[in-house]
Amino acid sequence: MMDGQGTTRTEALMNAVRAKIANRALGPGDRLPSVRSFARTMGASPSTVVDAYGRLEAEGVIRARRGSGFYVTGADLPPMALAGMGPPGARAVDPLWVSRQSLDAAPSALKPGCGWLPPEWMPHAALRKGLRELARAEDGLLSDYGGARGAPGLRRLLLGRLADEGVAASIDHVMLTGSGTQAIDLICRLFLRPNDAVLVDDPCYFNFQALLRAHQARVVGVPFTPTGPDTSAFERVLKEENPRLYITNSALHNPTGASLSPQTAHRVLSAAAAHGVTIVEDDIFADFEPALSPRLAILDGLNRVIRTGSFSKTLSASLRCGYIAARPDWIEGLADLQIATSFGGPSPVATGLVAGVLAGGGYRKHMDRLRNRLTCARMAAAERLRPLGVVPWIMPRGGFYLWCRLPDGQDSTTLAQRCLEENVILAPGNVFSVSQTAGAFLRFNVAQLDDARTFAVLQKAMAKG
Amino acid sequence: MMDGQGTTRTEALMNAVRAKIANRALGPGDRLPSVRSFARTMGASPSTVVDAYGRLEAEGVIRARRGSGFYVTGADLPPMALAGMGPPGARAVDPLWVSRQSLDAAPSALKPGCGWLPPEWMPHAALRKGLRELARAEDGLLSDYGGARGAPGLRRLLLGRLADEGVAASIDHVMLTGSGTQAIDLICRLFLRPNDAVLVDDPCYFNFQALLRAHQARVVGVPFTPTGPDTSAFERVLKEENPRLYITNSALHNPTGASLSPQTAHRVLSAAAAHGVTIVEDDIFADFEPALSPRLAILDGLNRVIRTGSFSKTLSASLRCGYIAARPDWIEGLADLQIATSFGGPSPVATGLVAGVLAGGGYRKHMDRLRNRLTCARMAAAERLRPLGVVPWIMPRGGFYLWCRLPDGQDSTTLAQRCLEENVILAPGNVFSVSQTAGAFLRFNVAQLDDARTFAVLQKAMAKG
Repeated sequence: MMDGQGTTRTEALMNAVRAKIANRALGPGDRLPSVRSFARTMGASPSTVVDAYGRLEAEGVIRARRGSGFYVTGADLPPMALAGMGPPGARAVDPLWVSRQSLDAAPSALKPGCGWLPPEWMPHAALRKGLRELARAEDGLLSDYGGARGAPGLRRLLLGRLADEGVAASIDHVMLTGSGTQAIDLICRLFLRPNDAVLVDDPCYFNFQALLRAHQARVVGVPFTPTGPDTSAFERVLKEENPRLYITNSALHNPTGASLSPQTAHRVLSAAAAHGVTIVEDDIFADFEPALSPRLAILDGLNRVIRTGSFSKTLSASLRCGYIAARPDWIEGLADLQIATSFGGPSPVATGLVAGVLAGGGYRKHMDRLRNRLTCARMAAAERLRPLGVVPWIMPRGGFYLWCRLPDGQDSTTLAQRCLEENVILAPGNVFSVSQTAGAFLRFNVAQLDDARTFAVLQKAMAKG
Repeated sequence: MMDGQGTTRTEALMNAVRAKIANRALGPGDRLPSVRSFARTMGASPSTVVDAYGRLEAEGVIRARRGSGFYVTGADLPPMALAGMGPPGARAVDPLWVSRQSLDAAPSALKPGCGWLPPEWMPHAALRKGLRELARAEDGLLSDYGGARGAPGLRRLLLGRLADEGVAASIDHVMLTGSGTQAIDLICRLFLRPNDAVLVDDPCYFNFQALLRAHQARVVGVPFTPTGPDTSAFERVLKEENPRLYITNSALHNPTGASLSPQTAHRVLSAAAAHGVTIVEDDIFADFEPALSPRLAILDGLNRVIRTGSFSKTLSASLRCGYIAARPDWIEGLADLQIATSFGGPSPVATGLVAGVLAGGGYRKHMDRLRNRLTCARMAAAERLRPLGVVPWIMPRGGFYLWCRLPDGQDSTTLAQRCLEENVILAPGNVFSVSQTAGAFLRFNVAQLDDARTFAVLQKAMAKG
């Protein structure tokens, strides 16, 4: 018997079982419903169920045990999927979409949607000098694991930055990690259990969602305004959802480029304190600010706020080094988790290189140049997008993102799929939005917008309506 | 009222609540038992419970909500502990103990218990040459993230090795990771849910236990013999526990140095197939073998067996680079998880360096030298331990471990604590043993045994009885 899709009843039952296994409602070793009860549930005849189970057994998906029914073997259990599988082009436009497209882009691709600066903006002279110096470093640095919390030299540089901002901290407040994302991942491991609620901004950095999905957390969005999260909504959601963590960018927020106002900072921190919520403040864009804007970690003095960051946006993403600043007892637990899951911190070679470049006099000049260059690029980008009817939500005070509203009737996911066919990788609004309400937005990286082809391809895609 | 330890009844109740929070029986936002029911459970008066709850509220640990009782705030929730906290010297001798002691050892410490070669055994000339070459590499390699699965060049080198072993695989079978441990961690993320059973050898590498604890897996040990796991026990445990994964080292097993026999390999793989168990074969010591011994991944052709490894033991632990070889559909899911949790693969700078050294003609010579040197060190170590009554369980055919039985009446945990006071870091047997039945064993690293002080300190510690 066939349904509308040309699927037989037997195949429909097989698909139902496969779906239960795919979404892990049934795990390996779990017993399937009895033939009679599954037939009743599915409105099918017992003989159809017997047929379906038999074919699934032949495929190795389930296995009969004498006298006790059928069990999931797990042999062909599809892995716990974060995203829809399939060839990259055919993948769903979900929170992993932009990352996969950008990381694995062909060299010829244009990447106005990606989250980093083009190589020619990075301080290669300093990196090359650092590598030549490393070639003369002591043996241990080149071949040993390094300490569990990472090199003290780089940790002290980070402490110096905290001290400049008015936060008195000790070396026990800081550890290094394999990346900024890994820093947040370790924190999630320390604090979250499956189904814990976690608050994020809506919109927020898409990888926060992918990461939280990997932790099986319940992701709850709070509407984001040009001065930070909507504080009334924030307070209401704290009450209703009892979240364990709030993960945010306070300065040069991704994707909007907005920064927290002092009043919002104070209200957010007070509400978090009242509800026992731990805050993860991802400060990855800190050095792109023209001047320090309010930070939750500073107001709070690293009590319930944890600061994370990395050097991927300003120095090199190839070195893979992030950091965490937090209460020493939490750092202790995070360092244990980093040993258990990565066997130690980031590469001592990489941290040596980062520390050398940061301590060298050239870093401040490099950042001055980057900030100026980005200011010009931001204004130029806004100028070139305006004729297309694409308008910045706000004009950020730094960084490389421009969060732009499309003309009425345009859907950014559709545009992103069309532009991908022309080898232009966009960042459509809904990959950033828990509530899926940002379909009218695109995030542009103003440093990746100097090719006229981007605008031509975008215009053509928009013309299709 | 005071009990034997000088704790008041109120404090005892407070401690009971804190313990529930510490072991996460109570999470943030969870409601505490009512005063009446907690009093009944604890055999205390309601007024003592009111007192205890009030003091916990004053500490910010719990919070009253009008008319609905007390709730855990989470504000002062101790992080999810992997290990007992406290200053390093005072930590419990658990699966994280050796790692913490070894990674954070003072430069003057002797480390016969650590799991890596001394710096002077590593190929520094090749590493320095590689760094000088990297200083002239193209910009993108020095500052970009690199692809989601890691550099194709190094992946192809690994494919070549698989082909030499008779496994036909494609580039889609291989991905690079931030370390060998991170490779296994990603696999656990893909396959495990909390409380899933995972099989390990007893004894096994201690960090498998720490890692599985971080995944809240149920760790089940199978007795290990000189030819691999005890196959009858393995088959019985598969039936009884329905494990999702089996994690093992087939060749030069850590800590025993044993290698799988062909018969055991076949039986283990057949049993795993019959029960739908996925196998993780951590092949980190592969290059230390004088000749290829049986491998599950080869027998199986990368179907249900996943191979992991790294370059930390033979090239450099400072570079942080591991790999996974597995079915392409699993690699796809693992690459997604690596993006979500680390934003991409290992450092392209590091993988470039590793690939350069591996492809250079010197690597084969370096490994020949290492193997010869280790054979001598192994025999010398056995020779020097014999007068102490410390006897190898087997004489391994390669690698740097010697798993040794102590004389009757000696406890390796006690010895390890005594020797730590003398700045000698040992690896006591029970950190490797799920069943805690290896108290009479120590794992020695024969490459870290050239200082006579180690033997003197050990002898002194044993003399205390």
